[in-house]
Amino acid sequence: MRVLGIDPGSQATGYGIVERHGQRVVHVAHGTLRPPRGAALAERLAALQAGLARAIATHAPDVAAVERVFAGRSLRSALVLGHARGAALAAAAAAGLPVLEYAPSEIKQAVAGTGAAEKRQVQAMVRRLLDLADAPAVDAADALAAALCHAHRGPLAGLASAFGRRRARAPAPSRLVVRRAR
Amino acid sequence: MRVLGIDPGSQATGYGIVERHGQRVVHVAHGTLRPPRGAALAERLAALQAGLARAIATHAPDVAAVERVFAGRSLRSALVLGHARGAALAAAAAAGLPVLEYAPSEIKQAVAGTGAAEKRQVQAMVRRLLDLADAPAVDAADALAAALCHAHRGPLAGLASAFGRRRARAPAPSRLVVRRAR
Repeated sequence: MRVLGIDPGSQATGYGIVERHGQRVVHVAHGTLRPPRGAALAERLAALQAGLARAIATHAPDVAAVERVFAGRSLRSALVLGHARGAALAAAAAAGLPVLEYAPSEIKQAVAGTGAAEKRQVQAMVRRLLDLADAPAVDAADALAAALCHAHRGPLAGLASAFGRRRARAPAPSRLVVRRAR
Repeated sequence: MRVLGIDPGSQATGYGIVERHGQRVVHVAHGTLRPPRGAALAERLAALQAGLARAIATHAPDVAAVERVFAGRSLRSALVLGHARGAALAAAAAAGLPVLEYAPSEIKQAVAGTGAAEKRQVQAMVRRLLDLADAPAVDAADALAAALCHAHRGPLAGLASAFGRRRARAPAPSRLVVRRAR
Protein backbone atom coordinates (compact mmCIF):
# COMPACT_ATOMS: atom_id res chain seq x y z
CA MET A 1 0.00 0.00 0.00
CA ARG A 2 1.35 3.39 -1.05
CA VAL A 3 0.20 6.44 0.87
CA LEU A 4 0.41 10.04 -0.29
CA GLY A 5 0.51 12.56 2.54
CA ILE A 6 -0.32 16.18 1.71
CA ASP A 7 0.27 19.29 3.79
CA PRO A 8 -1.53 22.03 1.85
CA GLY A 9 -0.56 25.67 2.23
CA SER A 10 -0.91 28.86 0.24
CA GLN A 11 2.85 29.52 -0.03
CA ALA A 12 4.09 25.93 -0.01
CA THR A 13 2.42 22.53 -0.15
CA GLY A 14 4.37 19.56 1.13
CA TYR A 15 3.84 16.06 -0.15
CA GLY A 16 5.33 12.76 0.89
CA ILE A 17 4.87 9.20 -0.28
CA VAL A 18 5.53 6.10 1.80
CA GLU A 19 4.97 2.44 1.13
CA ARG A 20 4.02 -0.22 3.61
CA HIS A 21 5.58 -3.69 3.42
CA GLY A 22 3.98 -5.81 6.16
CA GLN A 23 5.03 -4.13 9.40
CA ARG A 24 7.62 -1.90 7.74
CA VAL A 25 6.99 1.47 6.16
CA VAL A 26 9.57 2.78 3.68
CA HIS A 27 10.15 6.16 2.12
CA VAL A 28 9.32 6.60 -1.56
CA ALA A 29 9.53 10.33 -2.24
CA HIS A 30 8.81 13.75 -0.82
CA GLY A 31 8.92 17.35 -1.93
CA THR A 32 7.53 20.84 -1.65
CA LEU A 33 5.39 22.54 -4.29
CA ARG A 34 5.81 26.30 -4.49
CA PRO A 35 3.46 27.99 -6.97
CA PRO A 36 4.99 30.96 -8.86
CA ARG A 37 5.06 33.93 -6.47
CA GLY A 38 3.96 36.62 -8.86
CA ALA A 39 0.99 34.71 -10.25
CA ALA A 40 -2.67 35.38 -9.46
CA LEU A 41 -4.36 33.26 -6.79
CA ALA A 42 -6.32 31.10 -9.26
CA GLU A 43 -3.13 30.45 -11.22
CA ARG A 44 -1.27 29.46 -8.06
CA LEU A 45 -4.02 27.01 -7.11
CA ALA A 46 -4.00 25.47 -10.59
CA ALA A 47 -0.20 25.09 -10.34
CA LEU A 48 -0.60 23.37 -6.97
CA GLN A 49 -3.09 20.93 -8.48
CA ALA A 50 -0.86 20.28 -11.49
CA GLY A 51 2.09 19.57 -9.16
CA LEU A 52 0.09 17.10 -7.10
CA ALA A 53 -1.27 15.45 -10.25
CA ARG A 54 2.33 14.98 -11.46
CA ALA A 55 3.41 13.48 -8.12
CA ILE A 56 0.42 11.12 -8.19
CA ALA A 57 1.09 10.09 -11.79
CA THR A 58 4.77 9.47 -11.01
CA HIS A 59 4.41 7.54 -7.76
CA ALA A 60 0.93 5.99 -8.11
CA PRO A 61 -0.21 6.08 -4.47
CA ASP A 62 -3.34 4.12 -3.45
CA VAL A 63 -4.69 6.58 -0.93
CA ALA A 64 -4.15 10.13 0.29
CA ALA A 65 -3.90 11.33 3.89
CA VAL A 66 -4.19 14.94 5.09
CA GLU A 67 -4.32 16.63 8.45
CA ARG A 68 -7.84 17.54 9.50
CA VAL A 69 -8.18 21.26 10.09
CA PHE A 70 -10.73 22.77 12.39
CA ALA A 71 -10.04 26.43 11.84
CA GLY A 72 -7.26 28.89 11.20
CA ARG A 73 -5.95 31.42 13.65
CA SER A 74 -7.98 34.15 11.97
CA LEU A 75 -10.84 34.44 9.50
CA ARG A 76 -8.37 35.56 6.88
CA SER A 77 -5.97 32.66 7.42
CA ALA A 78 -8.86 30.14 7.50
CA LEU A 79 -10.05 31.43 4.15
CA VAL A 80 -6.54 31.36 2.64
CA LEU A 81 -5.78 27.87 3.95
CA GLY A 82 -9.21 26.70 2.78
CA HIS A 83 -8.38 27.70 -0.81
CA ALA A 84 -5.16 25.65 -0.91
CA ARG A 85 -6.73 22.76 0.95
CA GLY A 86 -9.76 22.67 -1.35
CA ALA A 87 -7.55 22.60 -4.43
CA ALA A 88 -5.34 19.85 -2.96
CA LEU A 89 -8.24 17.62 -1.87
CA ALA A 90 -9.93 18.00 -5.25
CA ALA A 91 -6.71 17.07 -7.06
CA ALA A 92 -6.36 13.86 -5.03
CA ALA A 93 -10.01 12.88 -5.50
CA ALA A 94 -9.89 13.71 -9.22
CA ALA A 95 -6.99 11.24 -9.51
CA GLY A 96 -9.24 8.56 -7.99
CA LEU A 97 -7.62 8.49 -4.55
CA PRO A 98 -9.74 8.11 -1.42
CA VAL A 99 -8.76 10.97 0.89
CA LEU A 100 -8.58 10.30 4.61
CA GLU A 101 -8.31 13.01 7.23
CA TYR A 102 -6.53 12.66 10.55
CA ALA A 103 -6.59 14.99 13.53
CA PRO A 104 -3.28 16.82 14.16
CA SER A 105 -2.97 15.02 17.50
CA GLU A 106 -3.43 11.60 15.83
CA ILE A 107 -0.64 12.34 13.38
CA LYS A 108 1.73 13.57 16.08
CA GLN A 109 0.87 10.58 18.26
CA ALA A 110 1.59 8.22 15.34
CA VAL A 111 5.05 9.56 14.53
CA ALA A 112 6.29 11.05 17.80
CA GLY A 113 4.38 9.03 20.40
CA THR A 114 2.65 12.10 21.82
CA GLY A 115 -0.21 14.20 20.47
CA ALA A 116 1.50 17.31 21.81
CA ALA A 117 4.74 16.94 19.82
CA GLU A 118 6.27 20.09 18.32
CA LYS A 119 7.09 20.67 14.64
CA ARG A 120 10.80 19.95 15.19
CA GLN A 121 10.08 16.68 16.99
CA VAL A 122 7.82 15.59 14.13
CA GLN A 123 10.51 16.52 11.62
CA ALA A 124 13.19 14.59 13.55
CA MET A 125 10.98 11.52 14.05
CA VAL A 126 9.94 11.43 10.38
CA ARG A 127 13.62 11.48 9.43
CA ARG A 128 14.43 8.68 11.88
CA LEU A 129 11.40 6.49 11.06
CA LEU A 130 12.07 6.69 7.33
CA ASP A 131 15.85 6.47 7.67
CA LEU A 132 16.47 9.64 5.68
CA ALA A 133 19.93 11.17 5.28
CA ASP A 134 18.58 14.69 5.91
CA ALA A 135 15.55 16.04 7.72
CA PRO A 136 12.88 16.93 5.16
CA ALA A 137 11.69 20.57 5.01
CA VAL A 138 8.85 21.34 7.41
CA ASP A 139 5.96 21.08 4.91
CA ALA A 140 7.26 17.84 3.41
CA ALA A 141 7.89 16.44 6.92
CA ASP A 142 4.27 17.18 7.90
CA ALA A 143 3.08 15.51 4.71
CA LEU A 144 5.23 12.42 5.39
CA ALA A 145 3.90 12.38 8.96
CA ALA A 146 0.31 12.27 7.68
CA ALA A 147 1.27 9.45 5.30
CA LEU A 148 3.02 7.55 8.12
CA CYS A 149 -0.01 8.01 10.36
CA HIS A 150 -2.22 6.29 7.80
CA ALA A 151 0.34 3.60 6.95
CA HIS A 152 0.84 2.77 10.63
CA ARG A 153 -2.77 2.06 11.36
CA GLY A 154 -2.13 -1.66 11.10
CA PRO A 155 -4.38 -4.19 9.41
CA LEU A 156 -7.34 -1.85 9.87
CA ALA A 157 -5.72 0.66 7.54
CA GLY A 158 -6.64 -1.48 4.55
CA LEU A 159 -10.25 -1.59 5.65
CA ALA A 160 -10.36 2.14 6.27
CA SER A 161 -8.88 2.75 2.85
CA ALA A 162 -11.36 0.39 1.17
CA PHE A 163 -14.20 2.11 3.01
CA GLY A 164 -12.94 5.52 1.93
CA ARG A 165 -12.66 4.33 -1.65
CA ARG A 166 -16.21 2.92 -1.64
CA ARG A 167 -17.63 6.08 -0.13
CA ALA A 168 -15.67 8.22 -2.52
CA ARG A 169 -16.54 6.37 -5.72
CA ALA A 170 -20.11 5.21 -5.27
CA PRO A 171 -23.34 6.69 -3.93
CA ALA A 172 -23.97 6.15 -0.21
CA PRO A 173 -24.68 2.46 0.46
CA SER A 174 -28.22 3.13 1.70
CA ARG A 175 -29.21 4.78 -1.57
CA LEU A 176 -27.64 1.96 -3.53
CA VAL A 177 -29.78 -0.57 -1.65
CA VAL A 178 -32.93 1.41 -2.35
CA ARG A 179 -32.13 1.47 -6.04
CA ARG A 180 -31.37 -2.22 -6.18
CA ALA A 181 -34.66 -3.05 -4.42
CA ARG A 182 -36.74 -1.52 -7.23
CA MET B 1 -16.36 38.54 -25.20
CA ARG B 2 -17.89 35.73 -23.17
CA VAL B 3 -17.75 35.96 -19.39
CA LEU B 4 -18.18 33.10 -16.94
CA GLY B 5 -19.40 34.18 -13.51
CA ILE B 6 -18.92 31.76 -10.63
CA ASP B 7 -20.49 31.83 -7.17
CA PRO B 8 -18.67 29.06 -5.29
CA GLY B 9 -20.25 27.36 -2.29
CA SER B 10 -19.86 24.09 -0.43
CA GLN B 11 -23.47 22.98 -0.97
CA ALA B 12 -24.12 24.63 -4.32
CA THR B 13 -21.99 26.51 -6.83
CA GLY B 14 -23.74 28.80 -9.25
CA TYR B 15 -22.36 29.61 -12.67
CA GLY B 16 -23.59 31.93 -15.36
CA ILE B 17 -22.29 32.86 -18.80
CA VAL B 18 -23.04 36.09 -20.63
CA GLU B 19 -21.78 37.48 -23.91
CA ARG B 20 -21.14 41.08 -24.76
CA HIS B 21 -22.06 42.47 -28.18
CA GLY B 22 -20.99 46.12 -28.31
CA GLN B 23 -23.06 47.83 -25.63
CA ARG B 24 -25.43 44.89 -25.18
CA VAL B 25 -24.90 41.91 -22.90
CA VAL B 26 -26.89 38.77 -23.62
CA HIS B 27 -27.53 35.63 -21.64
CA VAL B 28 -25.81 32.42 -22.77
CA ALA B 29 -26.41 29.91 -19.98
CA HIS B 30 -26.59 29.46 -16.24
CA GLY B 31 -26.94 26.65 -13.74
CA THR B 32 -26.21 25.32 -10.29
CA LEU B 33 -23.71 22.56 -9.53
CA ARG B 34 -24.64 20.41 -6.56
CA PRO B 35 -22.02 17.80 -5.65
CA PRO B 36 -23.44 14.46 -4.41
CA ARG B 37 -24.60 14.97 -0.81
CA GLY B 38 -23.33 11.71 0.63
CA ALA B 39 -19.84 11.99 -0.84
CA ALA B 40 -16.66 12.86 1.05
CA LEU B 41 -15.42 16.47 0.94
CA ALA B 42 -12.58 15.77 -1.52
CA GLU B 43 -15.00 13.97 -3.83
CA ARG B 44 -17.45 16.87 -3.68
CA LEU B 45 -14.70 19.33 -4.59
CA ALA B 46 -13.57 17.17 -7.51
CA ALA B 47 -17.21 17.00 -8.72
CA LEU B 48 -17.44 20.79 -8.51
CA GLN B 49 -14.30 21.13 -10.62
CA ALA B 50 -15.55 18.58 -13.14
CA GLY B 51 -18.85 20.46 -13.44
CA LEU B 52 -17.11 23.78 -14.05
CA ALA B 53 -14.74 22.17 -16.55
CA ARG B 54 -17.78 20.85 -18.45
CA ALA B 55 -19.48 24.27 -18.45
CA ILE B 56 -16.24 25.88 -19.69
CA ALA B 57 -15.79 23.25 -22.42
CA THR B 58 -19.41 23.66 -23.54
CA HIS B 59 -19.63 27.46 -23.57
CA ALA B 60 -16.00 28.50 -24.13
CA PRO B 61 -15.89 31.70 -22.06
CA ASP B 62 -12.89 34.04 -22.44
CA VAL B 63 -12.63 35.13 -18.84
CA ALA B 64 -14.00 34.24 -15.39
CA ALA B 65 -15.37 36.65 -12.76
CA VAL B 66 -15.93 35.85 -9.09
CA GLU B 67 -16.94 37.82 -6.06
CA ARG B 68 -14.01 38.78 -3.86
CA VAL B 69 -14.41 37.42 -0.35
CA PHE B 70 -12.82 39.00 2.66
CA ALA B 71 -13.87 36.54 5.31
CA GLY B 72 -16.72 34.30 6.36
CA ARG B 73 -19.00 34.88 9.30
CA SER B 74 -17.02 32.39 11.35
CA LEU B 75 -13.69 30.58 11.20
CA ARG B 76 -15.54 27.42 10.30
CA SER B 77 -17.51 29.00 7.44
CA ALA B 78 -14.41 30.81 6.12
CA LEU B 79 -12.58 27.48 5.96
CA VAL B 80 -15.50 25.71 4.27
CA LEU B 81 -16.05 28.49 1.74
CA GLY B 82 -12.31 28.64 1.11
CA HIS B 83 -12.29 24.96 0.07
CA ALA B 84 -15.02 25.43 -2.55
CA ARG B 85 -13.58 28.72 -3.74
CA GLY B 86 -10.07 27.29 -4.08
CA ALA B 87 -11.37 24.38 -6.16
CA ALA B 88 -13.44 26.70 -8.37
CA LEU B 89 -10.62 29.20 -8.99
CA ALA B 90 -8.17 26.41 -9.80
CA ALA B 91 -10.64 24.86 -12.28
CA ALA B 92 -11.03 28.17 -14.13
CA ALA B 93 -7.28 28.83 -14.22
CA ALA B 94 -6.55 25.25 -15.29
CA ALA B 95 -8.87 25.82 -18.26
CA GLY B 96 -6.73 28.82 -19.23
CA LEU B 97 -9.16 31.53 -18.12
CA PRO B 98 -7.92 34.69 -16.45
CA VAL B 99 -9.88 35.02 -13.20
CA LEU B 100 -10.93 38.50 -12.09
CA GLU B 101 -12.28 39.27 -8.65
CA TYR B 102 -14.81 41.99 -7.87
CA ALA B 103 -15.89 43.30 -4.49
CA PRO B 104 -19.48 42.38 -3.50
CA SER B 105 -20.40 46.08 -3.56
CA GLU B 106 -19.00 46.51 -7.11
CA ILE B 107 -21.12 43.62 -8.35
CA LYS B 108 -24.28 44.91 -6.67
CA GLN B 109 -23.59 48.41 -7.96
CA ALA B 110 -23.16 47.06 -11.49
CA VAL B 111 -26.44 45.15 -11.64
CA ALA B 112 -28.71 46.95 -9.16
CA GLY B 113 -27.29 50.48 -9.17
CA THR B 114 -26.46 50.37 -5.47
CA GLY B 115 -23.70 48.59 -3.59
CA ALA B 116 -26.14 47.85 -0.77
CA ALA B 117 -28.66 45.87 -2.86
CA GLU B 118 -30.17 42.76 -1.29
CA LYS B 119 -30.07 39.22 -2.72
CA ARG B 120 -33.64 39.51 -4.05
CA GLN B 121 -32.94 42.80 -5.78
CA VAL B 122 -29.87 41.29 -7.44
CA GLN B 123 -31.92 38.28 -8.53
CA ALA B 124 -34.69 40.48 -9.97
CA MET B 125 -32.26 42.81 -11.76
CA VAL B 126 -30.28 39.93 -13.27
CA ARG B 127 -33.55 38.55 -14.63
CA ARG B 128 -34.55 41.91 -16.08
CA LEU B 129 -31.12 42.80 -17.51
CA LEU B 130 -30.80 39.45 -19.26
CA ASP B 131 -34.46 39.27 -20.27
CA LEU B 132 -35.00 35.86 -18.67
CA ALA B 133 -38.43 34.22 -18.46
CA ASP B 134 -37.82 33.16 -14.84
CA ALA B 135 -35.61 34.46 -12.07
CA PRO B 136 -32.50 32.25 -11.81
CA ALA B 137 -31.89 30.45 -8.50
CA VAL B 138 -29.92 32.52 -5.98
CA ASP B 139 -26.47 30.98 -6.62
CA ALA B 140 -26.83 31.18 -10.40
CA ALA B 141 -28.16 34.76 -10.11
CA ASP B 142 -25.09 35.76 -8.08
CA ALA B 143 -22.85 34.11 -10.68
CA LEU B 144 -24.62 35.93 -13.53
CA ALA B 145 -24.29 39.18 -11.54
CA ALA B 146 -20.52 38.70 -11.31
CA ALA B 147 -20.38 38.00 -15.06
CA LEU B 148 -22.52 41.08 -15.80
CA CYS B 149 -20.28 43.20 -13.57
CA HIS B 150 -17.25 42.26 -15.66
CA ALA B 151 -19.07 42.53 -19.00
CA HIS B 152 -20.42 46.00 -18.13
CA ARG B 153 -17.07 47.55 -17.46
CA GLY B 154 -17.13 49.17 -20.89
CA PRO B 155 -14.24 49.32 -23.33
CA LEU B 156 -11.82 48.95 -20.43
CA ALA B 157 -13.16 45.46 -19.77
CA GLY B 158 -11.25 44.12 -22.75
CA LEU B 159 -8.04 45.65 -21.49
CA ALA B 160 -8.59 44.31 -17.98
CA SER B 161 -9.20 40.88 -19.42
CA ALA B 162 -6.10 41.02 -21.59
CA PHE B 163 -4.07 42.19 -18.62
CA GLY B 164 -5.48 39.38 -16.48
CA ARG B 165 -4.62 36.87 -19.17
CA ARG B 166 -1.08 38.14 -19.49
CA ARG B 167 -0.55 38.10 -15.74
CA ALA B 168 -2.08 34.67 -15.47
CA ARG B 169 -0.14 33.05 -18.27
CA ALA B 170 3.29 34.61 -18.13
CA PRO B 171 5.75 35.63 -15.44
CA ALA B 172 5.37 39.19 -14.12
CA PRO B 173 6.40 41.68 -16.84
CA SER B 174 9.30 43.07 -14.78
CA ARG B 175 10.89 39.63 -14.46
CA LEU B 176 10.40 39.04 -18.16
CA VAL B 177 12.31 42.22 -18.92
CA VAL B 178 15.15 41.24 -16.63
CA ARG B 179 15.48 37.89 -18.36
CA ARG B 180 15.46 39.44 -21.80
CA ALA B 181 18.15 41.91 -20.79
CA ARG B 182 20.64 39.17 -19.99
